[in-house]
Amino acid sequence: MASQALIKEFEQLLGKENVFSSEADCQTYSYDSAVLNPVVPAFVVRPTNTEQLGQCVSKLYENGIPMTVRGAGTNLSGGTIPDRSESVVILTNGLNRILEINESDLYAVVECGVVTADFANAVAAKNLLYPPDPGSQSVSTIGGNIAENAGGLRGLKYGVTKDYLMGVEFFDATGALVKSGSRTVKCVTGYNLAGMLTQSEGTLGIISQAVLKLVPPPKASKAIMAVFDDIQKAAESVAGIIASHIVPCTLELLDNNTIVRVDDFTKAGLPRDAAAILLIEVDGHPAQVEDEALVVEKVLKENNATTVHVAKDAEEKNRLWEARRMALPVLARCKPTTVLEDATVPRSQIPAMMKAINEIAAKYRLEVGTFGHAGDGNLHPTFLCDRRDKDEFHRVEEAVDEMFDVALKLQGTLSGEHGIGTAKAKWMEKETSRGTILFSQRLRRALDPKGLLNPTKLVGI
Amino acid sequence: MASQALIKEFEQLLGKENVFSSEADCQTYSYDSAVLNPVVPAFVVRPTNTEQLGQCVSKLYENGIPMTVRGAGTNLSGGTIPDRSESVVILTNGLNRILEINESDLYAVVECGVVTADFANAVAAKNLLYPPDPGSQSVSTIGGNIAENAGGLRGLKYGVTKDYLMGVEFFDATGALVKSGSRTVKCVTGYNLAGMLTQSEGTLGIISQAVLKLVPPPKASKAIMAVFDDIQKAAESVAGIIASHIVPCTLELLDNNTIVRVDDFTKAGLPRDAAAILLIEVDGHPAQVEDEALVVEKVLKENNATTVHVAKDAEEKNRLWEARRMALPVLARCKPTTVLEDATVPRSQIPAMMKAINEIAAKYRLEVGTFGHAGDGNLHPTFLCDRRDKDEFHRVEEAVDEMFDVALKLQGTLSGEHGIGTAKAKWMEKETSRGTILFSQRLRRALDPKGLLNPTKLVGI
Repeated sequence: MASQALIKEFEQLLGKENVFSSEADCQTYSYDSAVLNPVVPAFVVRPTNTEQLGQCVSKLYENGIPMTVRGAGTNLSGGTIPDRSESVVILTNGLNRILEINESDLYAVVECGVVTADFANAVAAKNLLYPPDPGSQSVSTIGGNIAENAGGLRGLKYGVTKDYLMGVEFFDATGALVKSGSRTVKCVTGYNLAGMLTQSEGTLGIISQAVLKLVPPPKASKAIMAVFDDIQKAAESVAGIIASHIVPCTLELLDNNTIVRVDDFTKAGLPRDAAAILLIEVDGHPAQVEDEALVVEKVLKENNATTVHVAKDAEEKNRLWEARRMALPVLARCKPTTVLEDATVPRSQIPAMMKAINEIAAKYRLEVGTFGHAGDGNLHPTFLCDRRDKDEFHRVEEAVDEMFDVALKLQGTLSGEHGIGTAKAKWMEKETSRGTILFSQRLRRALDPKGLLNPTKLVGI
Repeated sequence: MASQALIKEFEQLLGKENVFSSEADCQTYSYDSAVLNPVVPAFVVRPTNTEQLGQCVSKLYENGIPMTVRGAGTNLSGGTIPDRSESVVILTNGLNRILEINESDLYAVVECGVVTADFANAVAAKNLLYPPDPGSQSVSTIGGNIAENAGGLRGLKYGVTKDYLMGVEFFDATGALVKSGSRTVKCVTGYNLAGMLTQSEGTLGIISQAVLKLVPPPKASKAIMAVFDDIQKAAESVAGIIASHIVPCTLELLDNNTIVRVDDFTKAGLPRDAAAILLIEVDGHPAQVEDEALVVEKVLKENNATTVHVAKDAEEKNRLWEARRMALPVLARCKPTTVLEDATVPRSQIPAMMKAINEIAAKYRLEVGTFGHAGDGNLHPTFLCDRRDKDEFHRVEEAVDEMFDVALKLQGTLSGEHGIGTAKAKWMEKETSRGTILFSQRLRRALDPKGLLNPTKLVGI
């Protein structure tokens, strides 16, 4: 069917106000947060209820048109970049209803386009907690979080998106509705399709609704900042805290470059000479928090932290976290291109990984700022560069290659939370096996025989 | 290939001592813990390392022979009953090595045939905790636990098997090795195949190894027994405890019939007149345990528990739990046939579900004993009957049908932790949708085109 006729059909289905086909509109949906070339889609549709979402999928399937579903486009691996100019983008921000927050049974039911932070706030208003807190939460959507299995700062203690997904409804490639999971704490009825959809990056089905687990919020918390004159000591402290059987809710690291860049921008009075700082938060029962904070302080001092500072109150705690929250925005301002990586290693390998990152950056003469979820072994080495400088960008690519090799040698993984998309697909086989790639492609082809669901992402068509 | 020739080949591969083909041996592997007809397999093979496991799968695939993998055969839905007399059983009890317990990074790597309790004990010896504790743990295997997504008594606070599966290696239908997940806390590299394999009942791949998450053990715990003269009050207490934002590690219910039967057998001095008892355990930091126990006691008294008793010490705590642990073995002794169900509802629906179970049992003139994980909404109504009595057994089947209808009406699920197998396959569409069944069958056929991996289970071939 000619594109214009199809656009008309979508206008009839969704209303003119929910179909975007001007060049300017299409440009808007041609890129995401990854450093990759944009691809302008044919047009963009915006269903406003889940039935319409299913009808959009059916119509695109019948017409053999590739579809890329987009929440807020915050993913960092190219998962929401259309694969070709014939592709249609399905926007989910019109599917933004919180359908139920069940306080007795500690779950919620939401549409896929609900913004994560809006949901977390609605849950908090009922004195409950939805723990996953990806850095993008103020704009990213629950559907996108599931499709990418988004992590965040609280992953260490509370887990990531997949740990809160109790059930899901999604449309398969043909537009047929599929249900998996339940509102119950335990459910083994049928395949764990909710688990399978998690981190599938829009390639196995299009999520319309999710049942999410909630938990009672912790009664107390305490934030601690530790300053180090040697990044290895900071890294060893991370391993030491876990070895002491303390699982903080957050355990974040900022290296010297990040500290200086953040302090330049925020004038927050951060320790500019420090090789690294650790930001640690413990939470739970008040007595537990007191005890755990003491153990953490002890470990930090044993590892020769030059300063250990416990936040006196909520305001000071927020100030500490502000430094962490500003890390990426500030680094991203420094140079035209920010290559934010998330190779991840077992926690005890953080010292080795930190050493390798800095050696690799020096070898390739690159500026790197490293921050991230040290407690998860999930660091974000961030290369500050200019993509237009071909020689420099080539060095960045070589550095990233070498970093992945090190991560895999340390029994780590390519991506802790940013996804594979198109950005990391080429490394997949090195981490897994030929059998894994073939199995994954077989899975995908079976569930999407026409190859229309976000093609080229993850493991190719 | 003739069966005898194939048996010879397996004897060469595995050694004569690891191939069983006598009638007596084959009979042993013809049934599991479900009330279903046995099916005697052609022969049984027992690989003793993972390479051999892969070779067994390849050889059976090449010969077009259906295979049923068996850990300990404790599943309750027919998942380990061979589907026809040509089937071969692959026993995993020779793959029982714990390959690594990593105390710094809080994970372990095990072969599929490791017995759950052996593993939990090995982990406990290093002062760590592997929380999933299915009732079958003293014999069941980790591979079986993953394939069934086994639950247990601690599901309420600690989750079930899937919540501890960080990574998996498995063989696909052809015998090719597939890897998914990692030793890292976060990993989004490729499809979440570990999640997909969970509760797939041996139909999508054959698990050879798993990476399992460990946690620091709680520092303290407290067990409480509450006695009720009305089962509704017990059920309402369950909802009340959760509503108070207390998440006990276990919250179990025994109804009057179970109490009397257990007391007859154990002479433990249980309150034989009670309509129900609740057994509750809270754990964590000592101060948290004290506080939570007080809140639990308050809720129990508000719901008119006739007695609330806090166990004074570990010995008394164990005695209380012994009553719960004996529930199934004792009920199973009463009549020739025990139909143990596990329809599950959102926790707040426990009062309605308990009422329905007893009304249905009365309507069909059946003896039922109900116990189970009330905190999860996961009750085990247990029908005591004699399968040879055709009229009675027909009434049991009708009662079970009706019970599932009620569970679904209450937004519950067919199975909390026992699986679908062949026992519950017929109800699957009612809970999900036609699209879900078709999608699941497509998934299965793609990954097992010859239909050899535990055929007929879950959603048919």
